[in-house]
Amino acid sequence: MAVYTHLAAEQLAELIAEYDVGQLVSAKGIAEGVSNSNWLVETTGKDGRGARFILTMYEERVNPDYLPFYLGLLDHLAAKGAPVPGTIHDRAGAAFRFVADPDGDAKAVALIEFLPGVSVDHPTEAQAHSVGRALAGIHLAVADFPQRGVQTMGLGTWDRMIHDCGEGGLALIDPELPGLAFSELSYLAGNWPGGLPQGVVHCDLFPDNVLMLGDEVTGLIDFYFAATDLLAYDLAVTHAAWSFTKGGRNFRPEISRALLRGYEEVRPLLEYEREHLPVLARGACMRFISSRAYDWINTPADALVTRKDPMDFVRRLQFYTDAADQAFSNRS
Amino acid sequence: MAVYTHLAAEQLAELIAEYDVGQLVSAKGIAEGVSNSNWLVETTGKDGRGARFILTMYEERVNPDYLPFYLGLLDHLAAKGAPVPGTIHDRAGAAFRFVADPDGDAKAVALIEFLPGVSVDHPTEAQAHSVGRALAGIHLAVADFPQRGVQTMGLGTWDRMIHDCGEGGLALIDPELPGLAFSELSYLAGNWPGGLPQGVVHCDLFPDNVLMLGDEVTGLIDFYFAATDLLAYDLAVTHAAWSFTKGGRNFRPEISRALLRGYEEVRPLLEYEREHLPVLARGACMRFISSRAYDWINTPADALVTRKDPMDFVRRLQFYTDAADQAFSNRS
Repeated sequence: MAVYTHLAAEQLAELIAEYDVGQLVSAKGIAEGVSNSNWLVETTGKDGRGARFILTMYEERVNPDYLPFYLGLLDHLAAKGAPVPGTIHDRAGAAFRFVADPDGDAKAVALIEFLPGVSVDHPTEAQAHSVGRALAGIHLAVADFPQRGVQTMGLGTWDRMIHDCGEGGLALIDPELPGLAFSELSYLAGNWPGGLPQGVVHCDLFPDNVLMLGDEVTGLIDFYFAATDLLAYDLAVTHAAWSFTKGGRNFRPEISRALLRGYEEVRPLLEYEREHLPVLARGACMRFISSRAYDWINTPADALVTRKDPMDFVRRLQFYTDAADQAFSNRS
Repeated sequence: MAVYTHLAAEQLAELIAEYDVGQLVSAKGIAEGVSNSNWLVETTGKDGRGARFILTMYEERVNPDYLPFYLGLLDHLAAKGAPVPGTIHDRAGAAFRFVADPDGDAKAVALIEFLPGVSVDHPTEAQAHSVGRALAGIHLAVADFPQRGVQTMGLGTWDRMIHDCGEGGLALIDPELPGLAFSELSYLAGNWPGGLPQGVVHCDLFPDNVLMLGDEVTGLIDFYFAATDLLAYDLAVTHAAWSFTKGGRNFRPEISRALLRGYEEVRPLLEYEREHLPVLARGACMRFISSRAYDWINTPADALVTRKDPMDFVRRLQFYTDAADQAFSNRS
């Protein structure tokens, strides 16, 4: 959540001139993205009527080798009419370029469409319904996307991160966390479903990665965890991210129902997918417990980034474990 | 340089509805301002054709009691056609309002005009010339501004901050800093001019507080150090901020000349002011040496904010001390 790299205005103007978007009018570093620097850029526009873009500079956590995948995905989805920002290609047709940062290191940058909308904190049913529809729309639209993305945040990674934290580290977060995490990993390893429909999925569709205007979804953003995985797992991640009050303290059944209804209006789940939603949701919780616990232990308390509490997803995990029927019920 | 406070989209939309600016379309936290949180806000606009604003939330370092002064100054200057962002008043006519932050504390917020332009890193002569003209324009425009602003960063404060750092603290920054700082403070106390023309001045017009499009100044921003002080001191601050290469390493005589020429085209200096520019410039350096040294010593190395090197202004001070004639020469 910061701008990591300083880009001189002179350098920005030169960079923008590589694109057919008019001249640079304004550039403000924005407090978005955890693994890259972002600027909200305004130009005179192709037609002189003004245009806005997000300029992203990929910092160390994003490997430029993956950019053809991420940016290709955005272009594929935008071309299908999905509410995602398309990539602006430079005059030579490239989806990303390199610029020198102040230390002279080459950093990859991409210019992407600016989308209107704001991220909601406490979604309404109508908003959750729209998000469900938008997510299913993505799942249909990726059917003919030719690339595959490796899931770098799957079960094997959760296992490695939890073992890296160790019993002692986990116990520092909460005395009950080690027992819970290790037994949950065994449960998931023994019960993870195979054979469900797959595709390139978002895997991180929290409210802050969705832009909305009123009840309408205007943008799905931040696809940097996108990977080829089970479509129903992506729905489970989204369910865990949206259907609880702050900190995962209370389940919001009306939000859950609206999200699932919206999703199934566009892409009805197979019975076999629906049956496995509880275990997939437990996996979704484990994914965030493991990465948050790992970051918690490996990030100094006074570092630049705000550490996210792993216990927010322990609470959700307990709900999905204890009340699986309630979690995915269609009944009011 | 960060967004300190989270404002929910729902809360932002309610806040924007208090102004006659149309409906909220987008809000991005921007990485600007050291003592407040800022969002670049887009609305549908009064006429439905879209409008952009900066929403500023004043954090602890800005006392809301001073807001009528800062915001009144912006309105006064904007009304005179100076390139500063005017304040948008709410439907009840107020220039600022209070909103509750996530902890329930009331924080003052103001909606101000968005101005185009970018801040340059390495100004050209034409740009320095424009900045000189714009600064002089402000100095003329404040003549009938009825409020006074207390100079909280004057000689007395430099003295207090340097004494707070102490010899030991200053020596940690550079072994020669204690001797230099204490002797400079004595020199300034004995030589600070009285009787020069005064007014409300910016006092912090670094390149990052000036927005430009090409050679033109489109915005002077961040008036939060504005105070009633000597007009020529403000010019000296601006001179010290603009006329050197990075880190204050090299004097740029062509930039200095262009800045002074631009200024005097709009507001010719009195002979008595011109004579005192060298001591005022030494004071300007001492102002930034003292605040940076103080922050350097009192900010943990790994804190959120980037510490600025006091030595950048020690180098400038040495130049103004050793080459005063050269610094303010009009000759090429």
